[in-house]
Amino acid sequence: MLDTSTPMPEEGTMSAAEHFADRVEAAIGRTGNAVVVGLDPRLESIPAAILTACRARYGATPQAAAEAVWQFNRAIIDAIHDVVPAVKPQMAFYARYGVAGMGAFARTIDYARQAGLLVIADAKCNDIGSTAAAYAEAFLGRPTASAQTPASDFAADALTVNAYLGSEGIQPFVTCAQQHGKGLFVLVKTSNPSSGELQDLPISGRPLYEHLGTMVAAWGKDCRGACGYSALGAVVGATYPEQARRLRTLMPHTLFLVPGYGAQGATAADVVGCFDHQGRGALITASRSVIFAYRLPPFVTQYGARAYAAAARAATQRMIQEIQQALERQ
Amino acid sequence: MLDTSTPMPEEGTMSAAEHFADRVEAAIGRTGNAVVVGLDPRLESIPAAILTACRARYGATPQAAAEAVWQFNRAIIDAIHDVVPAVKPQMAFYARYGVAGMGAFARTIDYARQAGLLVIADAKCNDIGSTAAAYAEAFLGRPTASAQTPASDFAADALTVNAYLGSEGIQPFVTCAQQHGKGLFVLVKTSNPSSGELQDLPISGRPLYEHLGTMVAAWGKDCRGACGYSALGAVVGATYPEQARRLRTLMPHTLFLVPGYGAQGATAADVVGCFDHQGRGALITASRSVIFAYRLPPFVTQYGARAYAAAARAATQRMIQEIQQALERQ
Repeated sequence: MLDTSTPMPEEGTMSAAEHFADRVEAAIGRTGNAVVVGLDPRLESIPAAILTACRARYGATPQAAAEAVWQFNRAIIDAIHDVVPAVKPQMAFYARYGVAGMGAFARTIDYARQAGLLVIADAKCNDIGSTAAAYAEAFLGRPTASAQTPASDFAADALTVNAYLGSEGIQPFVTCAQQHGKGLFVLVKTSNPSSGELQDLPISGRPLYEHLGTMVAAWGKDCRGACGYSALGAVVGATYPEQARRLRTLMPHTLFLVPGYGAQGATAADVVGCFDHQGRGALITASRSVIFAYRLPPFVTQYGARAYAAAARAATQRMIQEIQQALERQ
Repeated sequence: MLDTSTPMPEEGTMSAAEHFADRVEAAIGRTGNAVVVGLDPRLESIPAAILTACRARYGATPQAAAEAVWQFNRAIIDAIHDVVPAVKPQMAFYARYGVAGMGAFARTIDYARQAGLLVIADAKCNDIGSTAAAYAEAFLGRPTASAQTPASDFAADALTVNAYLGSEGIQPFVTCAQQHGKGLFVLVKTSNPSSGELQDLPISGRPLYEHLGTMVAAWGKDCRGACGYSALGAVVGATYPEQARRLRTLMPHTLFLVPGYGAQGATAADVVGCFDHQGRGALITASRSVIFAYRLPPFVTQYGARAYAAAARAATQRMIQEIQQALERQ
């Protein structure tokens, strides 16, 4: 077993300062906001002309779908890479197109990282022991091959994980993350309406998600960066603002990855409680409301399908402004 | 939303009789046992000669690793396809080798299905709404492309899923499974030592996993096949025999997928309580103790690395016999 208390530098590229939480802090400092653009390229929502052109070349094949997804993502990344600190590709929308789709997933991760963005792979992995270690290697490993270590085509900066299997389902991910200066976000309180069916079950008067939150804080206590935040973060839905506020107090050193903004109904006021008193410690994600803004009011009137990337940039900037104003009203 | 109460036939290939649980029952009837061989091709455990030959051709690349994994799996499938009803490839060991590894995953699934085996994709997926639907389409969709529906390279017969997100994280999988005559196994009580950290937390005097088990039974009640079992199954670890016995009573119409046998320490006597009184309702998985039997006593003395597939067949047959004897002792 690797010692997880000391991050090991990656060959020639890492220093001890390159802790994941510190990289997040630096990226937020550079861009002036904590917005994460979700890259969930639903084929039925991307401009039809992209798919039509790809099908003209590849036929009605998964290859055409994967190419359309990749071209769409590339334009979105080009439009927002200088605006936000991070992107979050959701693996399901790539796996859906099989091996070709996973190729688009790999290209998207690589392109976004080359553009200077942090990449959070949203795969919600969960397993134990050497299986969890294999997932960690896949999504958090080295981006280049060597004779000993295979390449990881899917090497992102962070990964979402599910803790239903307990600490054995988290520790192998933590070990790999620490080794490569990467991060993790454990599902604690998710943003969907039915999240409470399991997560809110009362245990000694407290909901399950609070118990898990306390565990996540404990598991991550030896993984803090210079900024004070741990490489082991948590997913906390913006659609439950009171619960998020309580978790913020219970988990003062845990970065929150916050879904639910926009299409799922949460507003800027709802996410404020996910930040600490200095306005740090949270990354706010939005997917459909940003990447498909060209179809949505108010952007649909100004931007057509051809200007979908510009619409995504405008929607991102509006979201940044809304959150900034909400934080200032605090 | 699709109506999930009536399975929809797949183009030209399905009849209403081809319910997943009925297919499991038929496969168990045909082979006379309920053993599932886990295809977890750890590169460090497969015979060195396979990897050496692949590296001679592809260099020290992920392609070489993926090719070695595929060749190993193909020989294992050839050796056990007429002995057991199903195999269970674990996605982590393929994703680890990137896009090439996912190609080996696709080839393995297809080859095993062509050989007449049921294939359970062990990906422990979890997400909600259209994202969950995309995962379901990836792992349970159609195996062939059409103009409207993209191909699913990873089209297995069943998929493992994690229910921490509640019913919204299960329903889209159920809808897709019903549409294509496929099955699901929800993680309820996992086999690892730390599974109790969350799963055993007491809620109104009963452990969390029992609450979830009751939910899974309710979610699956409209998905029963002619055999009486539902297409919505549960993962229940053999390493907790008392808990499994209790869940068997609570979930009389739920198929159990039972890990923990062999390398994880559970014995044939431990799995008996996962079956119903007629010896039905459970699939018992083993991975390392079967596919790497050539390295383990007693097989290591009779079979060398060259005869790894024959060793896997012998280990499978021994496991089948052990479970049969334990069931007869009941």
